[in-house]
Amino acid sequence: MTAGAAPSGIAAIVGGGVIGGGWAARFLLHGWDVAVVDPHPDAAKRVDEVIDNARRSLPALADAPMPTEGELKFVDDLADAVNGASWIQESVPEELALKRAVHADILKYAASDAIVASSTSGFRPSELRPSPGEAGRVIVAHPFNPVYLLPLVEVVAGPDAHDRAERAAAVLASVGMQPLIVRREIDAHIADRLLESVWREALWLVKDDVATTEEIDDAIRFGFGLRWAQMGLFETYRLAGGEDGMAHFIRQFGPALQWPWSRLTDVPELTEALVQKIARQSDEQSGAYSLRELEQIRDRNLIGILRSLKERDWGAGRTLNAHDRRLATSADATPADTVPLRLLDLTVLPGWIDYNGHMTEFRYVQVFSDACEALLRRVGLHDGYVAAGNSWYTAETHTQFFDEVGVNEAMYTTVQILAADAKRLHVYYRLHAAEDDRLLAAMEAMYLHVSLESGRVCAADEAAIDRLLAIAREHAELARPEAAGRRVGQRNQE
Amino acid sequence: MTAGAAPSGIAAIVGGGVIGGGWAARFLLHGWDVAVVDPHPDAAKRVDEVIDNARRSLPALADAPMPTEGELKFVDDLADAVNGASWIQESVPEELALKRAVHADILKYAASDAIVASSTSGFRPSELRPSPGEAGRVIVAHPFNPVYLLPLVEVVAGPDAHDRAERAAAVLASVGMQPLIVRREIDAHIADRLLESVWREALWLVKDDVATTEEIDDAIRFGFGLRWAQMGLFETYRLAGGEDGMAHFIRQFGPALQWPWSRLTDVPELTEALVQKIARQSDEQSGAYSLRELEQIRDRNLIGILRSLKERDWGAGRTLNAHDRRLATSADATPADTVPLRLLDLTVLPGWIDYNGHMTEFRYVQVFSDACEALLRRVGLHDGYVAAGNSWYTAETHTQFFDEVGVNEAMYTTVQILAADAKRLHVYYRLHAAEDDRLLAAMEAMYLHVSLESGRVCAADEAAIDRLLAIAREHAELARPEAAGRRVGQRNQE
Repeated sequence: MTAGAAPSGIAAIVGGGVIGGGWAARFLLHGWDVAVVDPHPDAAKRVDEVIDNARRSLPALADAPMPTEGELKFVDDLADAVNGASWIQESVPEELALKRAVHADILKYAASDAIVASSTSGFRPSELRPSPGEAGRVIVAHPFNPVYLLPLVEVVAGPDAHDRAERAAAVLASVGMQPLIVRREIDAHIADRLLESVWREALWLVKDDVATTEEIDDAIRFGFGLRWAQMGLFETYRLAGGEDGMAHFIRQFGPALQWPWSRLTDVPELTEALVQKIARQSDEQSGAYSLRELEQIRDRNLIGILRSLKERDWGAGRTLNAHDRRLATSADATPADTVPLRLLDLTVLPGWIDYNGHMTEFRYVQVFSDACEALLRRVGLHDGYVAAGNSWYTAETHTQFFDEVGVNEAMYTTVQILAADAKRLHVYYRLHAAEDDRLLAAMEAMYLHVSLESGRVCAADEAAIDRLLAIAREHAELARPEAAGRRVGQRNQE
Repeated sequence: MTAGAAPSGIAAIVGGGVIGGGWAARFLLHGWDVAVVDPHPDAAKRVDEVIDNARRSLPALADAPMPTEGELKFVDDLADAVNGASWIQESVPEELALKRAVHADILKYAASDAIVASSTSGFRPSELRPSPGEAGRVIVAHPFNPVYLLPLVEVVAGPDAHDRAERAAAVLASVGMQPLIVRREIDAHIADRLLESVWREALWLVKDDVATTEEIDDAIRFGFGLRWAQMGLFETYRLAGGEDGMAHFIRQFGPALQWPWSRLTDVPELTEALVQKIARQSDEQSGAYSLRELEQIRDRNLIGILRSLKERDWGAGRTLNAHDRRLATSADATPADTVPLRLLDLTVLPGWIDYNGHMTEFRYVQVFSDACEALLRRVGLHDGYVAAGNSWYTAETHTQFFDEVGVNEAMYTTVQILAADAKRLHVYYRLHAAEDDRLLAAMEAMYLHVSLESGRVCAADEAAIDRLLAIAREHAELARPEAAGRRVGQRNQE
């Protein structure tokens, strides 16, 4: 447990499943001591697994130091867990009688100022309190799996306990969550009402053989799921309505409420009063941005989400990677040999731009790496050669950055071989802007020829290396670049 | 229009609203010539705006060269647009009589092998064809806004036109989309049935004053919306079921179908046969991964999505940024700076792997760049500082590559400041494997403090640089790395 501005203390986790384990991880990794109680024989193992997942992932979200992890203990007795705890979180199975019994027990041992919260997906706080005299003691704090990563937590207090909800929300924010205080209690709160509606419709689709589970998931994650990671239902539809506005959109798609677009048919009447209410709330929510601004925010967010999925080669990102391969095969052309060798004509991709609006540092190095690939491909030391168990490994590089380059600017690289033999390849690359040939960057690199099997340096295939040496002989007549052999920080006149 | 492997030709866009404009952009930016027809006086302006948005964003998804943009024209006459087109996309308002009339006209002029597709959200292809004799000519290709970024397109053909659907899917993939062939026609296809269910429930919530539009959107985008950007409903619930499996999960939450968790009450009976069907389909969909693997994939994806939203300071990313500020203020009392400074715990992402199965060269440099950002953020020389017109530019780097690292391996960096003053920052980074602390790579870097306005080196803000100098003083006692000042190709014993 650490000192500091963030409140921390002891959290009692009652019920150690996937949700209870996620709560334990949230508190523990934010410096709280955590006591878990669950009679299930596998509870400690399950909680440990969830916490391991959390240790691998939650800190990766932070760009500030995380507190020192608290202490975790498993106890047999509810009283031992609850005693001294300032936050008590119940996550036992979704059975009302069981939950009420557990809360009756918790309230016997809990300090009077402790927050007692239930993870229930559907019950109302007033249903959970053991007796009317305990009004307001038990609140709902409903999280979403994985609890250690997803920010949302719905906070529902009884009608007489709003300040308790505010106090709970402050604690939840301190462990990195986004509390949504639900203004009045209702079965399944807000999010699970939406989820339950989708779930019911999805069950119909599977039952009626319209779609498989995979097709339904694809219909979500390649489409509106990407939208909903950053804007919800209403803000998205505000954009679909265009300049004509939200009221127009609702009126336009209103008739669909009467059409068989869903198996779920109990629909509200779309009165003009309801249309105006939604339009007014949407203005309050999103009116600070113009439609053009909102569109550009949405697109920037989607690019970020899609590119992160691309790096992970998953879902919509896998679609994009396949598309890249398709684009690459339809764009091939081989230039003639020049001295130094001009390889790789390319343009700065928008995804390569940093917050200053210019190509970011590591993309320069990526371009030089690609130039190396192009060189090796040119002399037949690539693909098939690598498949046969050999490769060139980069031992070290020295890069100088001379000038900025902006999005969509055309560039090319040149390659000058400084030295080559069967085991070592020493190369100097230059990156130029195509428009005016100005030098953008240069990189000196040393590669070693390695057997993939042994991991050791070995001689390259003789026939293949000959083609490389032929280029090296042509390059021997070139002046040696002044910066070759340069150290970081060396003065230019040295 | 370009040559190449990707099919391209002429696309006729009938109806120039937000959706039609998105289609125009998709085709145009993939090298197709595009003819737009729409009698609305603002159509050209609206389409141009959408295409401008697309030009700013679609290429940012590509890491391969995009084709040369095709030619765009606006025509007054449907016949002029359709004549010679191999793809004809209708996106007129959602009125059946109008759509049928438009398709009757299109079919008068369309080539017999042209694809004629409707963007309809709800109608079935068999409803759209002008006469039974035209069976199979009109298909549905239902996209999602923004059409130029979201990959999903639902393809629905009549029962007698499956090969037409396959042919359409190939074209849609060639413009970067993810076609989902819907196995049988049904009102609102798949995605819009799910959306319509959520929409109906959301309208009830607003009408009953349970939640505002903003609260509903927050309940989506801070929680399950983040899940759905990468996994759908069923794959997510498979994980919630834990080791007990999908059938267990459905049985456990089955009773909720009978509870008032939604205003939409027409629900399928949860027979054992339906439970087994879902469990079997889920196995086919996700069974290639163990639960632990799926959890880790999910978490990795969520980190990517959340971090990209964080960079954009939006939605859940804004929550995380606020949390960072909270952590940073409470960090003054907590973990002491290590010497050298340990920054940036991360794992190797699948997209970072090269054809040898190890982290590729430029990703090492990316990690060191990220470590530099983390250092600057730590001392308050980031975000706001950059916004105020200053930045550190990389002048040169020297990188040594010592060891390979495989996918999902955990790593961390250390930062040692070699020298710093108001204009120059000289840093030595090391990248270690977390498991055994082995050294993977090291980079020496020289940064210059630059005014973004003048583009010249200038002195950094004094108060800000002091925090950097404080760390530098602590690091002065460290041994200077042997490799600092090293030249490429220098012998180790020198």
